[in-house]
Amino acid sequence: MRSEAFYSYLDECRTLVVSELQNMLPRSGAAAQTLYELMYEYPLRDAKALRPALCIATCRALGGALESALPSAVVLELYHNAFLIHDDIEDGSEVRRGGPTLHRMYGAPIALNVADAMLAVALEPLLANTELLCVAKALHILQVVARMARESAEGQAQELAWIRQADWSQRDLDYVRMAHKKTTHYSFLAPMAIGAIVAGAPHSLRYRMTLLATALGAAFQIRDDTLNLEANAAAYDKDLAGDIWEGKRTLALLHALRCATPSDRERALAILRKPRPTSAEAAPDATARLLAELVRSGDLSETGAATLREHWTVAGAAKTREDVDFLLQLIQRSGSIEYARAIGRRYAARAKHAAERLWSGLSDSVHKRFLFQLTEFVVEREH
Amino acid sequence: MRSEAFYSYLDECRTLVVSELQNMLPRSGAAAQTLYELMYEYPLRDAKALRPALCIATCRALGGALESALPSAVVLELYHNAFLIHDDIEDGSEVRRGGPTLHRMYGAPIALNVADAMLAVALEPLLANTELLCVAKALHILQVVARMARESAEGQAQELAWIRQADWSQRDLDYVRMAHKKTTHYSFLAPMAIGAIVAGAPHSLRYRMTLLATALGAAFQIRDDTLNLEANAAAYDKDLAGDIWEGKRTLALLHALRCATPSDRERALAILRKPRPTSAEAAPDATARLLAELVRSGDLSETGAATLREHWTVAGAAKTREDVDFLLQLIQRSGSIEYARAIGRRYAARAKHAAERLWSGLSDSVHKRFLFQLTEFVVEREH
Repeated sequence: MRSEAFYSYLDECRTLVVSELQNMLPRSGAAAQTLYELMYEYPLRDAKALRPALCIATCRALGGALESALPSAVVLELYHNAFLIHDDIEDGSEVRRGGPTLHRMYGAPIALNVADAMLAVALEPLLANTELLCVAKALHILQVVARMARESAEGQAQELAWIRQADWSQRDLDYVRMAHKKTTHYSFLAPMAIGAIVAGAPHSLRYRMTLLATALGAAFQIRDDTLNLEANAAAYDKDLAGDIWEGKRTLALLHALRCATPSDRERALAILRKPRPTSAEAAPDATARLLAELVRSGDLSETGAATLREHWTVAGAAKTREDVDFLLQLIQRSGSIEYARAIGRRYAARAKHAAERLWSGLSDSVHKRFLFQLTEFVVEREH
Repeated sequence: MRSEAFYSYLDECRTLVVSELQNMLPRSGAAAQTLYELMYEYPLRDAKALRPALCIATCRALGGALESALPSAVVLELYHNAFLIHDDIEDGSEVRRGGPTLHRMYGAPIALNVADAMLAVALEPLLANTELLCVAKALHILQVVARMARESAEGQAQELAWIRQADWSQRDLDYVRMAHKKTTHYSFLAPMAIGAIVAGAPHSLRYRMTLLATALGAAFQIRDDTLNLEANAAAYDKDLAGDIWEGKRTLALLHALRCATPSDRERALAILRKPRPTSAEAAPDATARLLAELVRSGDLSETGAATLREHWTVAGAAKTREDVDFLLQLIQRSGSIEYARAIGRRYAARAKHAAERLWSGLSDSVHKRFLFQLTEFVVEREH
């Protein structure tokens, strides 16, 4: 793929979105320091800003103006970043986009409040759209955003319920439906729908656009999952291996569980029932060193040290590296990553077909080309 | 005060709001169980639903219809409950309205997602207002809600920044301004403004309404703080004593710090720098018992046990009951609760005056009476 043009398009959109956000937020006053500056933390890191770019490209490919789409594109990035902050807190993640997560930098209360503020601030450009566009378009966009927020929460609720109930009985389609709600709505459906509304595109485009966004979203999420597993297999890094540590459902893991022998499956399910270790459990070095010292000084017997070590492990009972290793081997042995990638490629082919039917009639432009490149990116990306 | 009429008015409004919410949310399907049922958890407990009642009473006292205000009143309750869920997670609270907090029942990830869903669902009645009322009123209400959400986040950011920076240099006015943003906007200003917009009240009411809401909000928050301290002094219960355990700024604590001798002040500030204990630290009994057993069996020396106990305490270093006790005595010795209550009464008197000027011209109704009773309730309430 002509990746250079694709990435420079993404880059340009990201610059525009960040500077529009800076124009929207106060730069002085108490709240600038305690609140608004923290909103730039994630957007200014190495982010793709895929969602605003998709919104802008759709709008412009359909003949709309950049200035008309930009405020709504910022809203999409604000929602995305608020979701990231919440996800990081929920998953206990430590790294995001190459830096520490916001709750690790400032604590969960401040991070949560920054996400709340992002959702609050997002309402303002949506209301200003009544003057920038017109009342009908502004209300239509607000409806799309409301639907998007609700679908995301429903998808997230489904995934969290499976985790909580230790339920691993999902078929592939259950997973794809969950991902459609959780990811596709706010990553593909809403950005494209908003771009089309801003451009004043005919309503008849709507059905084909939904087909494209649905296929793109599934391909994107499946690629996301397999990338996470591949990175993990190479590095065994807790923050790269998030999905396995967190016990998230993926096509590969569901496939591996179906293919496993009864005893392997039983062991895998027992591992998956354990929680992810907390930071304290992941780094018990200080305590371990102290116990060793007490044994050396004769203040603690070997038996006593073993009892104390067991006490801590039992208190934790979280997944260990060996556990995750076992699951990864199960996945590799049954070719489950290849299985998931093949399904991802099927959705990508569907997306390519839908994109052809949707966009090929448009006159050539960088925006149209970006929309085609996006489909290729979604399957082939390495990050 | 004629509290019976006041409470039955609140009760009626609460019943209306809960049943309107039930009409809005799906009752079947996967998301009903995993998500929507959890939204009723807090509203169905022993809640006052003060904010929707204030919105409805303002609208009806000004001649508006109940049906026109009800959907917006539900929105206020949804925002309030989303804030409560976030606050409970941020503060590590264990009890809310007589039951376990949502994150204790379902874990923080699910609780966070329920709050997100509440904010998402709240957009829908606000958009349906375009048909129920008219586009201009619906947009005006949306603007009030956007402002309210942003002010709340700014107020919360201010309070969290003080906590994080261990800054106790606030004057009374700093505290009152923070509370105005954090509490008054969504509890008094927005409910009254929305009620007035729905009723089509003249814009000229706006200034006096702001005066009333501002005074009411300050009186309400100060009463909230002193109730928390009084409950605490009686019961020393961690969940009642939240404000001191969490290190929240209150007029009483700021006053006590100003009145304290240099050495008491220093000790108080050292205590206030310590975090609230987590559940694990609050119940270290199992570990303590284990250490005692190991000493008895001869596997651990007394010195070793002392070292391990210190290791845990240093790792935790959270506030203890003795710490909180010291702060409470400081507050009691300097008459700080009485000091705060006196300031609260001054705001309440201002609110009474503002309510007279604002409402006394209206013809008599249960709604008008409720608005007057609210002022009395705010200062005299015992819960």
